[in-house]
Amino acid sequence: MQAMKNAFKTIALIGKYKNPEMRDQILAMKHYLLDRQLAVFVEETTAKECAIESCATLHMDAIGANADLAIVLGGDGTMLSVARALGDSSIPLVGINRGRVGFLTDISSDHMLEAMASILSGKFFIEQRPMLMASILRAGKVVSQGVALNDVVINKNGMSRLIELEVHIDGDFVHRQRSDGLIISTPTGTTAYSLSAGGPILHPSVDALAIVPICPHTLSNRPIAVNGTCKVEVILIEAESAGVHFDGQMLVDLAVGDRVLIQRAEKAVALLHPQGHSHYGMLREKLNWG
Amino acid sequence: MQAMKNAFKTIALIGKYKNPEMRDQILAMKHYLLDRQLAVFVEETTAKECAIESCATLHMDAIGANADLAIVLGGDGTMLSVARALGDSSIPLVGINRGRVGFLTDISSDHMLEAMASILSGKFFIEQRPMLMASILRAGKVVSQGVALNDVVINKNGMSRLIELEVHIDGDFVHRQRSDGLIISTPTGTTAYSLSAGGPILHPSVDALAIVPICPHTLSNRPIAVNGTCKVEVILIEAESAGVHFDGQMLVDLAVGDRVLIQRAEKAVALLHPQGHSHYGMLREKLNWG
Amino acid sequence: MQAMKNAFKTIALIGKYKNPEMRDQILAMKHYLLDRQLAVFVEETTAKECAIESCATLHMDAIGANADLAIVLGGDGTMLSVARALGDSSIPLVGINRGRVGFLTDISSDHMLEAMASILSGKFFIEQRPMLMASILRAGKVVSQGVALNDVVINKNGMSRLIELEVHIDGDFVHRQRSDGLIISTPTGTTAYSLSAGGPILHPSVDALAIVPICPHTLSNRPIAVNGTCKVEVILIEAESAGVHFDGQMLVDLAVGDRVLIQRAEKAVALLHPQGHSHYGMLREKLNWG
Amino acid sequence: MQAMKNAFKTIALIGKYKNPEMRDQILAMKHYLLDRQLAVFVEETTAKECAIESCATLHMDAIGANADLAIVLGGDGTMLSVARALGDSSIPLVGINRGRVGFLTDISSDHMLEAMASILSGKFFIEQRPMLMASILRAGKVVSQGVALNDVVINKNGMSRLIELEVHIDGDFVHRQRSDGLIISTPTGTTAYSLSAGGPILHPSVDALAIVPICPHTLSNRPIAVNGTCKVEVILIEAESAGVHFDGQMLVDLAVGDRVLIQRAEKAVALLHPQGHSHYGMLREKLNWG
Repeated sequence: MQAMKNAFKTIALIGKYKNPEMRDQILAMKHYLLDRQLAVFVEETTAKECAIESCATLHMDAIGANADLAIVLGGDGTMLSVARALGDSSIPLVGINRGRVGFLTDISSDHMLEAMASILSGKFFIEQRPMLMASILRAGKVVSQGVALNDVVINKNGMSRLIELEVHIDGDFVHRQRSDGLIISTPTGTTAYSLSAGGPILHPSVDALAIVPICPHTLSNRPIAVNGTCKVEVILIEAESAGVHFDGQMLVDLAVGDRVLIQRAEKAVALLHPQGHSHYGMLREKLNWG
Repeated sequence: MQAMKNAFKTIALIGKYKNPEMRDQILAMKHYLLDRQLAVFVEETTAKECAIESCATLHMDAIGANADLAIVLGGDGTMLSVARALGDSSIPLVGINRGRVGFLTDISSDHMLEAMASILSGKFFIEQRPMLMASILRAGKVVSQGVALNDVVINKNGMSRLIELEVHIDGDFVHRQRSDGLIISTPTGTTAYSLSAGGPILHPSVDALAIVPICPHTLSNRPIAVNGTCKVEVILIEAESAGVHFDGQMLVDLAVGDRVLIQRAEKAVALLHPQGHSHYGMLREKLNWG
Repeated sequence: MQAMKNAFKTIALIGKYKNPEMRDQILAMKHYLLDRQLAVFVEETTAKECAIESCATLHMDAIGANADLAIVLGGDGTMLSVARALGDSSIPLVGINRGRVGFLTDISSDHMLEAMASILSGKFFIEQRPMLMASILRAGKVVSQGVALNDVVINKNGMSRLIELEVHIDGDFVHRQRSDGLIISTPTGTTAYSLSAGGPILHPSVDALAIVPICPHTLSNRPIAVNGTCKVEVILIEAESAGVHFDGQMLVDLAVGDRVLIQRAEKAVALLHPQGHSHYGMLREKLNWG
Repeated sequence: MQAMKNAFKTIALIGKYKNPEMRDQILAMKHYLLDRQLAVFVEETTAKECAIESCATLHMDAIGANADLAIVLGGDGTMLSVARALGDSSIPLVGINRGRVGFLTDISSDHMLEAMASILSGKFFIEQRPMLMASILRAGKVVSQGVALNDVVINKNGMSRLIELEVHIDGDFVHRQRSDGLIISTPTGTTAYSLSAGGPILHPSVDALAIVPICPHTLSNRPIAVNGTCKVEVILIEAESAGVHFDGQMLVDLAVGDRVLIQRAEKAVALLHPQGHSHYGMLREKLNWG
């Protein structure tokens, strides 16, 4: 983490998908930034869905190349899908939530203009949050690929009650496990689904992946954290029906015998926080500590 | 639990469904019992699937009324489906597993003839294990019903990552929870899926149901045990896709707004154990204690 | 649970031990009850420690025989020690907490006079909460005994890192375990220490004891609930230093070889709740559910 | 991890403290090494306690400077105390256990001579395992210090049921917690006490510390892993009696108000493993996976 002088001239606004609830906040932010003589683009679909007219728009794919900063107005789910969509660029993302803050959208819309003033004056820091890249191999060929900021989850679908998986790390056999599934999580993802499944919280500065079994049949199968550079391979040994989830938002079906290779993606997500943001403070608030 | 003098004259043999692996054991048991001048029937489908010819057969539905004892040869999964199928009768069930014993099939096929000799000489005791009955109500009408010996599980299907449920017990509102699902388990079921989800082990003599959340979003949502006579109502508040599982073997789809009413079934299952069987001994062995 | 017509004529007031913080509430309650023509006694030590003069007092030992109702003003810790002290009588106890309610002291001092008015008009119900009785045997002789409303805990002291215990239930060997200790909890105690150690919540209407290992060395040693009538025997096999705690308030040292016998006490505690009190409502509030 | 050509000329043998059970193994190892023309010293106390006569001895403090390799014959507890004693040197340690291997003593005495032959021929690799250094400050002055290979544990003693702690990481306030205590563990320690308390397994290659609460009062207080360079400060806010444990073997008493500063020690322990040693293989065996 480091504070940076900034030169944000062109700013993109991205709202929650299929959900116009952030419309007023987007408009207020747009006016605020225009008043400060900045160039503002509203993401194309956001503009349409929120009925924001007479504004310059940019297609999601063009934001990385054409803007210096992207402001994401929505919940953590919105930030996850934007992060995956913009994952190839290095544009910083800042997240604004309605009312209660999220783990990734840590500015409340109640104070968003003060926070932006502060950020535009250079009072911020940027964290590089690693993403995961997963390839699904069937009969030795890649049949599907995806990225995730939180987690890649291999789990049972529908009728299936247990699946059986085999796990290898950097080529070393780890074990076979029968469970509801397995979560491979970045530090960012350890406050999401992984936490519900009993996983540890990894601070974003820890260079590691958490591997967390979901309802494992063997009671001594506990969460493991491995080095962030590890290549994790999960083979589907037995299942009636199973799939791979990316951030709980994108699903790819798996067949028995499929191999899922998971490793750190080349690009990380640049999360921008206002100065004074504390990861522990956020944990305290979100988890009702103390 | 109590030891009983026995008068088992007519015995039914039931094998693992769609799986002829128990054929030799079934034949050996049949000959052993015939040699002892007992009437032996092989369950109809078992006879067909295991290619057991020239034997008297009984349809599953007729076993309760026509036999004094049912010997189930298979794993715990086989016992669960037989228990549901014979749930309306009060015929005692004894379970024989191949090699390693299960929680419900606690006689190893390696010693099954000695065990039967002992049972036929009256050295056994019978436990009444309660079952659950669940009704699914849609718009106030029962659209489906089922029974379970282990557990009734309301959980997400496929793509869905979280579902939201509302729980009432005996008419009292308990809470809304977001999770992968909820397990309502008999004491018998507490060594099965419920245990993997972090639930407690309830001894069969405890008159209670365990209510165990699966990966709950709120970390303080812990397993609860309520009185065995309680009526549990679970309302599906939000889900992309969800269902009700009975013993992990039968699935009914749920729609948002559906109410699932779960309570103890009228009939219990009569599990017969050889004298000397110890529930704690089985826990030690199956869970690698000590 | 059942609502009862009441005839509370003589009421005892008991305050938090060595802590005058409830003085104002005690005085207010005393005046309120005297105004209603009821006989009021302040427990002797309470009167002295809170400097409450010119009032009728009763020694703790005399309260059971001389009053119809005891009002306990303090936290759950106060209620636990009063319950143990009055355990031989059947006097109903009602708990008043300062500000935030506890699990056992479920009336806030902010509304205590309205609550009392309601109770005196017969709007209440009484729950019988079982207690535990534990005897410590050394070389076959009882060297110490105690009762507990929440839990009996056998655990390591000081320097010791692990102790080894052997557990028997109703004479059946359960297992040997190496751990920080073992909690034997009533349903009442399952929202206290037991819950922190990973134990399940048992509703007060469940006739069971929870047996919960503290940081067990063997990861498959999970909490068990056994029938409320069970006799639990714990033998201290190995320890540098260990003890038995009663409700975390009274400690007896243990020597290697000591046997601790735990079973339900003969007398239960009669907890009085205002009408409308909901156990699940209390869980929701205290555990931040939903 | 890396394989190294070796030039072990002088070898020290260290046995389990106050326990002559390894005597035969020590003698066999000594003869084996002497036969290979190597210089062999037996640690002074080991020689005395195991009655090993007519051998060259070295005081523990002199081993680091005078030997190229130390062979530790005992259990994981022995390795822990040797690691702390030799922590200032960089001498590699290899661990031999009697019968069943430990997490740190991963060569069985049954195959120790073959393993040594292999090691002496250069087939081994050395892992640097970080240690912790903790200082206890009272009124601003360091009153005690210690090192640990597994963990530093701040916990309640004796009668005390809960203690209250305040945690800061790199100067950031994390939270106050009421619990039985707090474990700060190296990756090495995550398969020891930390695991019993519900902590995650950190692979030795992960540069992190695990901070694991013991029976926390607040149910959402979950284990956290922070960067291995973090300075953790724990302040004792409230306790009847509390202490700091180093590897569960050394205890320092704490007073209310004491600050415990924990960070990575300057020197790491060099653990030598035979070629082919697999960390995951050890986890599978020790935790009964699969």
